[in-house]
Amino acid sequence: MSNYTTPLRLYVTSDLAVGVDVELSTDQARYVVQVMRRGAGDPILLFNGRQGEWQGALTSLSKKSATIHLERQTRPQENERELRLLFAPIKRPAMELIVQKATELGVTALQPVITQHTNSDRVRTDRLKTIAMEAAEQCCRMMVPDVCELVALSDAVSDWSEGDVLFVMDETGGGDPVADVMAETAGRNAGGISFVIGPEGGFAETELDLLRSLPFSKSVSLGPRILRADTAALATLTCWQALCGDWRRDL
Amino acid sequence: MSNYTTPLRLYVTSDLAVGVDVELSTDQARYVVQVMRRGAGDPILLFNGRQGEWQGALTSLSKKSATIHLERQTRPQENERELRLLFAPIKRPAMELIVQKATELGVTALQPVITQHTNSDRVRTDRLKTIAMEAAEQCCRMMVPDVCELVALSDAVSDWSEGDVLFVMDETGGGDPVADVMAETAGRNAGGISFVIGPEGGFAETELDLLRSLPFSKSVSLGPRILRADTAALATLTCWQALCGDWRRDL
Repeated sequence: MSNYTTPLRLYVTSDLAVGVDVELSTDQARYVVQVMRRGAGDPILLFNGRQGEWQGALTSLSKKSATIHLERQTRPQENERELRLLFAPIKRPAMELIVQKATELGVTALQPVITQHTNSDRVRTDRLKTIAMEAAEQCCRMMVPDVCELVALSDAVSDWSEGDVLFVMDETGGGDPVADVMAETAGRNAGGISFVIGPEGGFAETELDLLRSLPFSKSVSLGPRILRADTAALATLTCWQALCGDWRRDL
Repeated sequence: MSNYTTPLRLYVTSDLAVGVDVELSTDQARYVVQVMRRGAGDPILLFNGRQGEWQGALTSLSKKSATIHLERQTRPQENERELRLLFAPIKRPAMELIVQKATELGVTALQPVITQHTNSDRVRTDRLKTIAMEAAEQCCRMMVPDVCELVALSDAVSDWSEGDVLFVMDETGGGDPVADVMAETAGRNAGGISFVIGPEGGFAETELDLLRSLPFSKSVSLGPRILRADTAALATLTCWQALCGDWRRDL
């Protein structure tokens, strides 16, 4: 056992229960053993998005493989409210930032959408999935958000259920103040909550018309300054959590 | 005159008035002429943080110099509420992100502070000033926030006036929900508003004791997940603007 007492926290897909041995992926084993220099007996936390968080001890390990022997559950699974972020692909660093920060802010699904002013029609979802996983591990979340494949904006907003709400970040200033709109929504609906953020060049006029015309959409303004797409995405999720989500005491 | 009709927007220190010729810095001239390929006659917007925003036309220009002949004021100067962000130096990309996003979110002063768990005692304020300037240019703000020199945390919180408030982002979960604390503060005080964010390792216990004991401080919680320092900084400023600041309709 080495001198590390703060357990690393890793996402795995295996089932978790007392006494189970979980083998880490090659990448995770390399991270644990070579990068973080953990040794036999060191504590590791695992979660799989279904069965809570478990603590175990590193048992057999080599440079490329490592097994965790599970000892006890440290946290039960928590159900999270569905929060879906629709965003147009933007430059890679800003897009990766959206995925990392949105995960910290509790998003459950990240849906890239093609818009008229989108200058990229390629999204490396595998890379974004890894970023979401690492962010979930670090921020102590009990699940990893889905990173969906790129679809057209119109397809992403075509299928809705009673009670769903889509907040449209209207960069033309046409929406109502975000705090007013969200406060009005809080507690009133039991459906899924989605947010849509335009590309750096903004939505095309026809896209804004489409979004505004949806019966479940609400246009929102994020103040007098022109926010970058990544800033707008994080600001929107922050407002939701602070006003209606799990940052409130009563939820 | 080239085909560019959207004016570039630049911050300058010179006085601005009808008919004045403003010479750009070498860096700005290079950006305008070589990077953005603007030519004689093209429109440029200038602001200086004191006399509003002005439109002018590019006149004499070479690869390294350019002059703008001012034609008309496009926006009056706006006074902004003092919003000061105290933050511990963190890794460079995350620190630069704080400066860029905080500028978009309306911060007026960025104050790096040395804390016990700060792993860097060097901050390149010149570089951060450039980032703040570029962000102000892009987000259409009328001023550029100050980037102050690094000081000890205790010095940064030693001088306060009646009505000032310091929001302490308490990552131990000891604070009240951010929306409640801010809603309570809104409209009640006319002093300066500050926010303090700890380093990646969190504040030391003695630092939290100091901050909590200040008569003008309010501890705030940002929910159940562990946010990175940069996420916490942006989330705090977002909540302020949405609940108490210039994202509200009535301000």
